[in-house]
Amino acid sequence: MTTSLGGLTDCIAPHLAAVDDLFQSELRSDLACVNQLVKHVLRFRGKMLRPTLTLLAGRACGELTESHVVIATVVEMVHMATLVHDDVLDEAELRRKGATINHLRGNEAAVLLGDYLISHSYHLCSSLQSQYASRAIARTTNQVCEGELLQIENRNNLDLTEATYLEIIKRKTAVLCATCCELGAKLSGASDDVVRRMSIFGMNVGMAFQIQDDILDIVGDMRTVGKTLGIDVEKGKMTLPMIHFRTHAPHEHQLLLHSLLESHEADKVERIRNLILPSDSIQYARGKAANLIRDARNVIEPLPESEATRALDFMADFVVSRPM
Amino acid sequence: MTTSLGGLTDCIAPHLAAVDDLFQSELRSDLACVNQLVKHVLRFRGKMLRPTLTLLAGRACGELTESHVVIATVVEMVHMATLVHDDVLDEAELRRKGATINHLRGNEAAVLLGDYLISHSYHLCSSLQSQYASRAIARTTNQVCEGELLQIENRNNLDLTEATYLEIIKRKTAVLCATCCELGAKLSGASDDVVRRMSIFGMNVGMAFQIQDDILDIVGDMRTVGKTLGIDVEKGKMTLPMIHFRTHAPHEHQLLLHSLLESHEADKVERIRNLILPSDSIQYARGKAANLIRDARNVIEPLPESEATRALDFMADFVVSRPM
Repeated sequence: MTTSLGGLTDCIAPHLAAVDDLFQSELRSDLACVNQLVKHVLRFRGKMLRPTLTLLAGRACGELTESHVVIATVVEMVHMATLVHDDVLDEAELRRKGATINHLRGNEAAVLLGDYLISHSYHLCSSLQSQYASRAIARTTNQVCEGELLQIENRNNLDLTEATYLEIIKRKTAVLCATCCELGAKLSGASDDVVRRMSIFGMNVGMAFQIQDDILDIVGDMRTVGKTLGIDVEKGKMTLPMIHFRTHAPHEHQLLLHSLLESHEADKVERIRNLILPSDSIQYARGKAANLIRDARNVIEPLPESEATRALDFMADFVVSRPM
Repeated sequence: MTTSLGGLTDCIAPHLAAVDDLFQSELRSDLACVNQLVKHVLRFRGKMLRPTLTLLAGRACGELTESHVVIATVVEMVHMATLVHDDVLDEAELRRKGATINHLRGNEAAVLLGDYLISHSYHLCSSLQSQYASRAIARTTNQVCEGELLQIENRNNLDLTEATYLEIIKRKTAVLCATCCELGAKLSGASDDVVRRMSIFGMNVGMAFQIQDDILDIVGDMRTVGKTLGIDVEKGKMTLPMIHFRTHAPHEHQLLLHSLLESHEADKVERIRNLILPSDSIQYARGKAANLIRDARNVIEPLPESEATRALDFMADFVVSRPM
């Protein structure tokens, strides 16, 4: 993400570097076995989307402080914790072109490493003077857990509605992005109205990001995306393109999707991909994501233009155009 | 625990009831599937050892406040989270005479439920005015994770030393008990010296508690203890009686223990039990726990005697005499 955004994140570059340093120093332990395990996490760290959102939102509303770096590090830890536990859940063998923790070290180590990350995120967050951020971060992780629980509750529910799908991705993905932008703005002393606008911006970008992720799980190229694809289908997760296809495709196609989803054939992912690709369901999902991004850009339109607001605008577009 | 301590916890009874209420109300969700899962946790809640420690330590140092109830609830949530994730780790099928979450609902639900509990514990903790408790709780969970990681690092390490064993149980069990007592005293406005004494008391009681737990895993009766026993042996966890036996039993017996530990025979747990029982290794571990309890009682001796200090004394003894 950082490289793709190019010069647009120059205004936060030293702070992003500070996030990197803080992330590593906070996770250091006096136990060698812990440091060994944490190394895996450092190796598969990625786009820094959430710290970038936090810092840009802060920069768009004023000066960046040490607290911004703390919160940007906290949200990255929270995100990494959910990835590590997600990999346990999804039995994914690849994450960011590297082997996942659970594949390398077993589910037990993955569960504990996720716990270690989440614990350190709260520990770091509680180093700030005020409880405001701690409360917001914990409220956010409450919702992330609910989103994930709602998701597994609906595994293999081929009748999942679009409304429930949107509720799932809102809680499991979008609220964290909303909190990043909200806290970034709040820590810069933004007005309540601007904090609210930033929160909506983050929520919409997060929703669009997850929809795009779900589209890529169907249409993406594993070599470009860098993680195992087709996992949603394998794990019985209905996503927006499939939900649309199930309710809008010609009846015969709907029946075929249904029987493919229930089958255990080896080429099931490939066949579902070939079935959905020529339909307009991918386009429908893309349009939904594009609308969310348009609304996101509109809601922060009243902010004074700056390098940071231009970067936020660009990021919003990038989220739905990325092949990553 | 509560019933066994009988009238000794009368001085904190209304606060313990308030902990129960707060525990339930904090975990309530607007999602039915979440409430459904949380019900399992409520069903297998048990001894309330950690809330009791928190409240008694507070009562021994002054008046109990709403903050004591909050922290007592927080530590119970932390404890339940570790139990739920431990059950994933240990593949235990029984916990407190009820089926474990992972057995009922799969590992994924158990991972997420543990995350939900830990997230809610931090959320509740951050409702307090000061960051002091939040920081202490998160520092504690950092150490709990390290203890668990050190433990799985040493799985099947038949040469585990007593020193490393003690380091494991200190981090994974004792620090949380220390924090309970420390925060209980701190919230009552105790002096630094008394807070430190309470922390040592909790640490020692926690160490003794875990040693007793490990003894019961070998010698206990499943019907009394109420959970699957022999798990330590099954999972290659060396505990104090086995460590002592390995280094102090007659050479032939040491070799037999070694070969049994490495074997996959169905009656391996039973045979190890029969091998260790007639030795003095169980007695050695019991003595170690008793010494810790004696030191714990001594360190709070200077506190003015009250119903609460008498209950703490009794609890300390109960920890090593309990058949539970």
